[in-house]
Amino acid sequence: MIGAGKSATVAIDYFLEHAAQEQWFLLLADADLKTAQKKIHKSKFASAHQLDVTDATERRKLIKQADLVVSMMPPALHLVIIKDCIDLGKHVVNASYVSPEIKALEPLAKKAGVILLCEMGLDPGIDHMSAMKTIHELQDKGARITSFKSFCGGLIARESDTNPWHYKFSWNPRNVVVAGQGTAQFLEGAQLRYLPHSRLFASPWKVSVNGSGSYEAYPNRDSLSYIELYGLQGVQTFIRGTLRKKGFMEAWHTLVQLGLTDDTYTIANSDKLSYKSFLKMYSAPSTDKALQAIYNYLNGEKSKHPIIAMYAFAGLLSDQLIPLKQATPAQILQSALELAWKMEEKDRDLVVMQHEFEYVLKGRKRNLYSSFVLKGEDRVNTAMARTVGLPLAIGAKLILQGRLKGSGLLLPIMPKVYNPVLVELKTNGVEFLDIEA
Amino acid sequence: MIGAGKSATVAIDYFLEHAAQEQWFLLLADADLKTAQKKIHKSKFASAHQLDVTDATERRKLIKQADLVVSMMPPALHLVIIKDCIDLGKHVVNASYVSPEIKALEPLAKKAGVILLCEMGLDPGIDHMSAMKTIHELQDKGARITSFKSFCGGLIARESDTNPWHYKFSWNPRNVVVAGQGTAQFLEGAQLRYLPHSRLFASPWKVSVNGSGSYEAYPNRDSLSYIELYGLQGVQTFIRGTLRKKGFMEAWHTLVQLGLTDDTYTIANSDKLSYKSFLKMYSAPSTDKALQAIYNYLNGEKSKHPIIAMYAFAGLLSDQLIPLKQATPAQILQSALELAWKMEEKDRDLVVMQHEFEYVLKGRKRNLYSSFVLKGEDRVNTAMARTVGLPLAIGAKLILQGRLKGSGLLLPIMPKVYNPVLVELKTNGVEFLDIEA
Repeated sequence: MIGAGKSATVAIDYFLEHAAQEQWFLLLADADLKTAQKKIHKSKFASAHQLDVTDATERRKLIKQADLVVSMMPPALHLVIIKDCIDLGKHVVNASYVSPEIKALEPLAKKAGVILLCEMGLDPGIDHMSAMKTIHELQDKGARITSFKSFCGGLIARESDTNPWHYKFSWNPRNVVVAGQGTAQFLEGAQLRYLPHSRLFASPWKVSVNGSGSYEAYPNRDSLSYIELYGLQGVQTFIRGTLRKKGFMEAWHTLVQLGLTDDTYTIANSDKLSYKSFLKMYSAPSTDKALQAIYNYLNGEKSKHPIIAMYAFAGLLSDQLIPLKQATPAQILQSALELAWKMEEKDRDLVVMQHEFEYVLKGRKRNLYSSFVLKGEDRVNTAMARTVGLPLAIGAKLILQGRLKGSGLLLPIMPKVYNPVLVELKTNGVEFLDIEA
Repeated sequence: MIGAGKSATVAIDYFLEHAAQEQWFLLLADADLKTAQKKIHKSKFASAHQLDVTDATERRKLIKQADLVVSMMPPALHLVIIKDCIDLGKHVVNASYVSPEIKALEPLAKKAGVILLCEMGLDPGIDHMSAMKTIHELQDKGARITSFKSFCGGLIARESDTNPWHYKFSWNPRNVVVAGQGTAQFLEGAQLRYLPHSRLFASPWKVSVNGSGSYEAYPNRDSLSYIELYGLQGVQTFIRGTLRKKGFMEAWHTLVQLGLTDDTYTIANSDKLSYKSFLKMYSAPSTDKALQAIYNYLNGEKSKHPIIAMYAFAGLLSDQLIPLKQATPAQILQSALELAWKMEEKDRDLVVMQHEFEYVLKGRKRNLYSSFVLKGEDRVNTAMARTVGLPLAIGAKLILQGRLKGSGLLLPIMPKVYNPVLVELKTNGVEFLDIEA
């Protein structure tokens, strides 16, 4: 396993738990030897290794000793690892999207008899597995699916929801801040739709999740490329979206309108500015009530608009100096939110996923809602870490046990991947609840 | 002179007119020999040359024969020409912004005794000359300038204003379509302001121009870097903006909100779509009245909102197929507008520029408005072509006559450049009218 950071813990623990029974030995490599040492808890089934992943000689020396490689590196670094694995005849598992560069390696992997098992996390990962299982079941019954919507969110449990944004970071803050830049594309009522970043958060969809309550959603960047992948050509509606609690999107939309999520230019001497004076540079009179309330507040007037409490909580009205030099607006915003939206030690996060199907069976229109909700235990043992790490670990186990066979790209949309993984996820608390309507 | 396209005509004519008296001979080079031949009108003071500007041998052969080179190439191609000119000891004139790459060549140019005279057009060009002349005059009187606003627009004369946008293209359509992408930066009332593209057209400034009527303006991308260049450190307000007629910005704002000015991604099979179905992909219900009117119209309802007539005129409600494959939204929008906003043969364009100063002199606050308005003759002899081409030609003449001396970068902000050029511009109808208030 290459990479022993925060997101690797669940998979590491899984490997150590199963090591005795499965006769596994884990080689855990990280840039920081101490991190790797700490994570293996002095297990006799594991060893820790310092590795600069850009050092080809050291990297290949480690890979050579393994039967299978799990890469927890950022997407950009997967490629060299995958190339080594193909070259050295080792299977490889990761949780990232298949890039065009990785896809281009498939013929070589097939020739070498090597499995590239990718997208084995939550999103991508569990979303594809659960969606495809239902799609295949419906199609096997002779149903024609006319609408598919799939929503996923990494949120905060009600008992830990202590702020007016109803949000805390359970994963990479940067991804949240720059989310939705570019133009979202989806299919709605047979109409192809393009929605730019500047309007993405302006018209939330309402999503009611079985047993979990009401949410709002915005569309992910590219839903369209999944239509063919899911075998749903001819579908009228196809949407993949992200869930937030009510109020978040409306407030986030103001940040986008002001320009605070822009990551394309830097502000000179940003470390000499307070957050409040930073905000002031972007605020102006507006016909939008929330923007006008912010402008009024910054110019000394009182305002009862709820956006003020949200901005105050986010640290944007503070006289504190920005701790970043020559930073982009998005980086400055992120630095404020990382403090404001930090999980407390005992906070419990919440992963919510729901697929919504409309289909026609024997001439009758039907609806099916398939959802799962998982709560974390605390700041370290999050539902997010669990739902990202488990599919990865289970996938690796299936290959090592010889239960997942093949060569080239294997993906969670394939029955031979999703069937056994979903079965084991269920025993680990990730279980989908289906409701027909 | 390298480049004999549309924007070169005024300078070419100027050189030919003055050739006999000044004992000039014009070598006119273009990628298309016929264009160059046509433009020199069989003058005995000129010759036409075919030149692929990327062919270093041919390029240098021509440059070697000249005393001075005028480059009408796009900014990206200036650099190689300037390098040749420094190498071969030839002065060079152009109408483009000084890029960091060109700036870096200044020491070499100085060493070679070569003049690089840049930014000699309308904007940049006449704007800097006229602003700096007034700034220096005020400062010489002991005035402290507290506010500087400068607006410029390439518009259409009232008698040729036949469409609901009150706009036709007198210059590069692409520049209009992608205008203001990125974030505008300016100084207003001692407050540094950042305004993103998504709100740039939402709150037009009203600008009243002496003898020409009312306009609206939006801020240009970067005003801030000119504060020091103009010697106006400590000023409270510093804005450079673009003028449009009333109504334009409000309607353009809807195009931005819909996402139609985005130039960052392409639409698959755009040539199979009509303009109307293209627009439909971006339209959705909205709290914004204009956007809702567009949505209603596209869904078969009637609407009296003026935006409908504007979109209809722009060709965006047409069933005509888009003539572009794999085009960006901005390219598709441009293709519609190029037809809709084309100048007719007899149409007259209008160049409008106004500088607005606030200053304190002997303890009294004063205002000064300095403006010029120039009308074109027809679609070919535009005010725009005239105001871009004349400064360039006059600048070249001053160097050839030995009246503009020096080496390295010479710019229109320098008195030795702006004084003689503004005098000659005046005799050519470009005269600033000053009003104290």
